[in-house]
Amino acid sequence: MLKKNFLLSPGPSKVPESVMLEMAEPIFHHRTPQYQKIFSEVTTDLKYVFRTQNDVFVFSSSGTGALETSISSFLSKGDKIITINGGKFGQRFGLIAKSFGIEADVIDVEWGKAIDPDVIKDKLSKDKNIKAVYTTLCETSTGVLTDIKKIGEIVAKTDAILVTDAVSGLVADKLDSDQWGVDVVVSGSQKGFMLPPGLAFLSSSKKAWKLVEQCKSPSFYFDLKRYKKSLDKNDVPWTPAITLILGLQKVLKMIKEEGIEEVWSRHAKLAKATRAAMQALGLELLSASPSNAVTAVKIPDSVDGGKLVKTIRDDLGVTLAGGQEHLKGKIFRIAHMGYCNQYDVIVGIAAVEEGFKKLGYDLKTGEGVKAFQKSWLS
Amino acid sequence: MLKKNFLLSPGPSKVPESVMLEMAEPIFHHRTPQYQKIFSEVTTDLKYVFRTQNDVFVFSSSGTGALETSISSFLSKGDKIITINGGKFGQRFGLIAKSFGIEADVIDVEWGKAIDPDVIKDKLSKDKNIKAVYTTLCETSTGVLTDIKKIGEIVAKTDAILVTDAVSGLVADKLDSDQWGVDVVVSGSQKGFMLPPGLAFLSSSKKAWKLVEQCKSPSFYFDLKRYKKSLDKNDVPWTPAITLILGLQKVLKMIKEEGIEEVWSRHAKLAKATRAAMQALGLELLSASPSNAVTAVKIPDSVDGGKLVKTIRDDLGVTLAGGQEHLKGKIFRIAHMGYCNQYDVIVGIAAVEEGFKKLGYDLKTGEGVKAFQKSWLS
Repeated sequence: MLKKNFLLSPGPSKVPESVMLEMAEPIFHHRTPQYQKIFSEVTTDLKYVFRTQNDVFVFSSSGTGALETSISSFLSKGDKIITINGGKFGQRFGLIAKSFGIEADVIDVEWGKAIDPDVIKDKLSKDKNIKAVYTTLCETSTGVLTDIKKIGEIVAKTDAILVTDAVSGLVADKLDSDQWGVDVVVSGSQKGFMLPPGLAFLSSSKKAWKLVEQCKSPSFYFDLKRYKKSLDKNDVPWTPAITLILGLQKVLKMIKEEGIEEVWSRHAKLAKATRAAMQALGLELLSASPSNAVTAVKIPDSVDGGKLVKTIRDDLGVTLAGGQEHLKGKIFRIAHMGYCNQYDVIVGIAAVEEGFKKLGYDLKTGEGVKAFQKSWLS
Repeated sequence: MLKKNFLLSPGPSKVPESVMLEMAEPIFHHRTPQYQKIFSEVTTDLKYVFRTQNDVFVFSSSGTGALETSISSFLSKGDKIITINGGKFGQRFGLIAKSFGIEADVIDVEWGKAIDPDVIKDKLSKDKNIKAVYTTLCETSTGVLTDIKKIGEIVAKTDAILVTDAVSGLVADKLDSDQWGVDVVVSGSQKGFMLPPGLAFLSSSKKAWKLVEQCKSPSFYFDLKRYKKSLDKNDVPWTPAITLILGLQKVLKMIKEEGIEEVWSRHAKLAKATRAAMQALGLELLSASPSNAVTAVKIPDSVDGGKLVKTIRDDLGVTLAGGQEHLKGKIFRIAHMGYCNQYDVIVGIAAVEEGFKKLGYDLKTGEGVKAFQKSWLS
């Protein structure tokens, strides 16, 4: 059969062809008015997507680079923070903290469940020395959405700052940074932003910036103070990933044109229809607090989970993601983020049906795509 | 007049059109056999260009990220090193060291001059506690080439390691890493490698790796131990800049096809002809120890240097670079690195002639391109 490739993994996600071609335009120098104009537009438009009046900084790095910055540019050795281990990326905050000698009070949450904001409230009321609370909007590894709004209300009443990893969540899940009192928001290019990996973003509130000014952790490449000094001159401290910035300019225009509320609503509809499809197939969802970026689905014990994802990718051409760490082989994840509409997702659902069938597992074939259509068209 | 754009700045440098289009191919997931195959090829081919048997690590970052890593992953607070302030990038090593509490014995060298290796020999013999010597193959800000081979002979006899910033030098200037005893070599994508900015590289010898194992400086994103653990499984710790890796695969093939010695020799011929052109125009070169990557040329006092570079760029379409720091307005730099042959450079020289004329300064018009041709064709 003719095989075509469809990318439905939760990062990297599909990049619009027009953006790929934009990035193939001849490269130019970045210490020029030409670049400054683009960079100025980009940093302004990022604020629109971040729903913030704060500065948004752009790094040439993976999302993890900005996650590190949200710790290393704000905190010093011995500082206390709260992190949440409810998935691979919440866990990562704890690992980064450890690397920098930051004392992390790690709240363990069953992977697949969402944190109860009251647990944070309780911890903050008992320990006034906690400087920051690290949260994850969409935990990519489990598809769990965190109630950032509620946590924001809690943290805003304290001296602590609220940091949110929105690498996969931003654009897909509603995040009203300033309204919700999120001090530091981190994101990356290869998920909702519809770009290849290679750029990371970080916004900082005035409350958080006080910590930056006091910060003693060693840093250079990710030193926010250097970025701020440059940004105030509409400049960057180090050579930027110019082609990706060109792409960023274009995708931000696309998001603005669609309107961020419309974008959120598209993702919500896609996610809802995906969940309906999976349930109609008799499959169980991992999370009761699902994100609109990615849906994690349990794989029945009798099915070889690794083989399922591999078969769907290698035989059918559709890239989903498997589980990570102890969820390896136990779940698959289908993304509906970024440059994604109903036709992309229905392909993914059809491929899930076909993949199970290939492995000899009897799903209710056709019920998935039918349920998707019914939900989408309702 | 019809204006066309020519990029002759010392980074970013021109990217081959075929590589730009390769990078515009549909994106795919990196935790796949498809990516692992490419990554394996790339890390092998990088060794060919680095002239090393050591591991070469790939970061999603600017070159500065790898410069930081060459300090933060090897040294701990209080360690002593030698750095050379003979230009903006040698200076940067000193600044990074300071950020990490490393004690740098900074050797000041007049910008435009090369370090005398005996100064390093002398310092190393007087202080056995010096753990590393930080050098710059081609100092991009001045076009000065450092005698790494000679420094390598000196450092190899000590317990110290030799680190060389070859961000702009590699590919253009000969660097025989293993033969010359260079322990750590740092480079980046946007110069000799003919790619857009966004990737950085670092190789480490076994001698240097002992320092990595002892290193106590905090790091996470650039933590070499994490990269090593991944590399041994032909993997990467964080999401890589996939499109740039695709481009890297392609440019490495191009370099191998031309042959690294041939590539060095092309750069040497281009640089020699460029210097001949500048001198024929009556202009003075900044450096007596010139790199083959970039030529820095003094601007006569009576000419507004900033205006010259701006005129050549904005009116004529040719991007050269001006001077940095105290050399601002005093020099211009013309690069002949990467995807560059005689026809690219002759355009640059013609534009220099035209730019001076536009500013009313009487160069010996035509003598530059004539001298270039004579040198090139000799």
